[in-house]
Amino acid sequence: MAIRYGIIGTGALGGFYGGMLAKAGREVHFLFRGDYEHVRKNGLRVDSVNGNFHLPEVNAHQNSQDMPLCDVILVCLKTTGNHHLPELIKPILHPGSVVVLLQNGLGLEEDLSAQLPGVSIAGGLAFICSNKVDPGHILHLDYGKLIVGSYNVPNLEILKKLIADLQSAGIQSELSPDLKFSRWQKLVWNIPFNGMTVVLNTTTDRLMDNEQTRELSKELMLEVIHGANACGVPLKESLSQQMIDMTIQMKPYAPSMKMDFDHHRAMEIEYIYSKPIETARKAGFEMHKISMLEKQLRFIQAHLSDK
Amino acid sequence: MAIRYGIIGTGALGGFYGGMLAKAGREVHFLFRGDYEHVRKNGLRVDSVNGNFHLPEVNAHQNSQDMPLCDVILVCLKTTGNHHLPELIKPILHPGSVVVLLQNGLGLEEDLSAQLPGVSIAGGLAFICSNKVDPGHILHLDYGKLIVGSYNVPNLEILKKLIADLQSAGIQSELSPDLKFSRWQKLVWNIPFNGMTVVLNTTTDRLMDNEQTRELSKELMLEVIHGANACGVPLKESLSQQMIDMTIQMKPYAPSMKMDFDHHRAMEIEYIYSKPIETARKAGFEMHKISMLEKQLRFIQAHLSDK
Repeated sequence: MAIRYGIIGTGALGGFYGGMLAKAGREVHFLFRGDYEHVRKNGLRVDSVNGNFHLPEVNAHQNSQDMPLCDVILVCLKTTGNHHLPELIKPILHPGSVVVLLQNGLGLEEDLSAQLPGVSIAGGLAFICSNKVDPGHILHLDYGKLIVGSYNVPNLEILKKLIADLQSAGIQSELSPDLKFSRWQKLVWNIPFNGMTVVLNTTTDRLMDNEQTRELSKELMLEVIHGANACGVPLKESLSQQMIDMTIQMKPYAPSMKMDFDHHRAMEIEYIYSKPIETARKAGFEMHKISMLEKQLRFIQAHLSDK
Repeated sequence: MAIRYGIIGTGALGGFYGGMLAKAGREVHFLFRGDYEHVRKNGLRVDSVNGNFHLPEVNAHQNSQDMPLCDVILVCLKTTGNHHLPELIKPILHPGSVVVLLQNGLGLEEDLSAQLPGVSIAGGLAFICSNKVDPGHILHLDYGKLIVGSYNVPNLEILKKLIADLQSAGIQSELSPDLKFSRWQKLVWNIPFNGMTVVLNTTTDRLMDNEQTRELSKELMLEVIHGANACGVPLKESLSQQMIDMTIQMKPYAPSMKMDFDHHRAMEIEYIYSKPIETARKAGFEMHKISMLEKQLRFIQAHLSDK
């Protein structure tokens, strides 16, 4: 049986992964908000390092009540809108559906599961540099790997099918045996670079060029690793140097939080900072520097509207 | 015997304290750099909350070789220029002179003493809101207390005379029995507010209005207090709440480091951040958050010229 896909939120991630699946011939239904009319008329455009493509006709929807029931629902919204998830998802759920949260941070699946008891939930971690540059127009700059892990999915067959579909569509993808591990692992990069590019109003390359901030980035990474360790997640300290080396090699990059800051949008402070801080604290580990970064970000968020 | 005063650096502090002493009839010699010609022609102007005054003729000098020997030398330069101190001070030193470093931070007297062995040195801590707003024009906004403490002054009589002169000139002043204590105590305010107003590009009132940064300011203060404690300085934790309450009462204020940042000048990171961090570390205490603030400031300093 072919999987029917629903993409909730067609931006940098949803547009890319959904677009790649649709291009490969899968049935994909996209939920749009502001871009709906534009995409109805002009289709979806993806400019990718792996080759540009244009889908002149996609299954575009303006609200999920008009969408068919979906087997795999890829949630690609910013977490700042997660309070809307139940109303957005419910209309397209069937008993065998799996909701995959392609979002950064910690505690996302727990929160959704509390809102939608009994629903099968997974997490997705996208290692990708991409941005939505215009309505219905995605720019894929680099990378693209998608790691998927079960939170409470009773039968992993559907996730395996998802991964096979992604791979057939040309996306590097694999099943994580431990979603919690994968989420913490991704935070090792996200925590330093999302916050620091905002607070210092800069990009990753400049943080890496400066000895002080290169060192601070590594210290923040080590704090994430030690926080994870306190929560029973066996991340190794050596991961910090690997990620520094990888970031030095990367093209200059503004992480998603920096893009949100630049566009005066709400930043994903809650799930990327507050939840990990809280989780580590409950396990007896205080993430001092990350907690400082969180407070600086909350100040900046509160004053974003002044700018 | 009347004390002859030398003011090295006639800015927000030197202009105010030197001006007050001169107005009270003391012999005060001022060293100017860029403002010399202006002050020769127009004198020194102080607009103070306690009453404005204008000194049409002051003993203005363009370099210290032209100054007479001085009994008390008040160093009111930014610490970023302290490598010039020996050459500036030597021409006006006599065997009974005392050099008073009216500067913020830690380790200043140690460094000067290493450069000028045998010279009597004291520290001065100015609790004042003042700025130089124009050449030869000081704006005194609030407060003004000056605490003076000996570093290696063999006979305290001269410091007592200085304090008596300051008091006669209408300045609240007292002798600190423990300069190290007084320096750390002042850092409890300076460390959070200098750095945070720069990193978050804001003023003290906004930091106090926001719950997150009010809390973070207090956490930074507690880190200073614990650092001081590790160095054998018995500051009490309760000082942090007192300083928060005091800052909430203050008018909106941009500390000197914020002024330097706004004017793209070198910031006093070394003596206000690096030295205290290093000193506490040697005593076995790691100031995590302050060290993060230091690194953020060094990044900002390195990129100030980009702006």
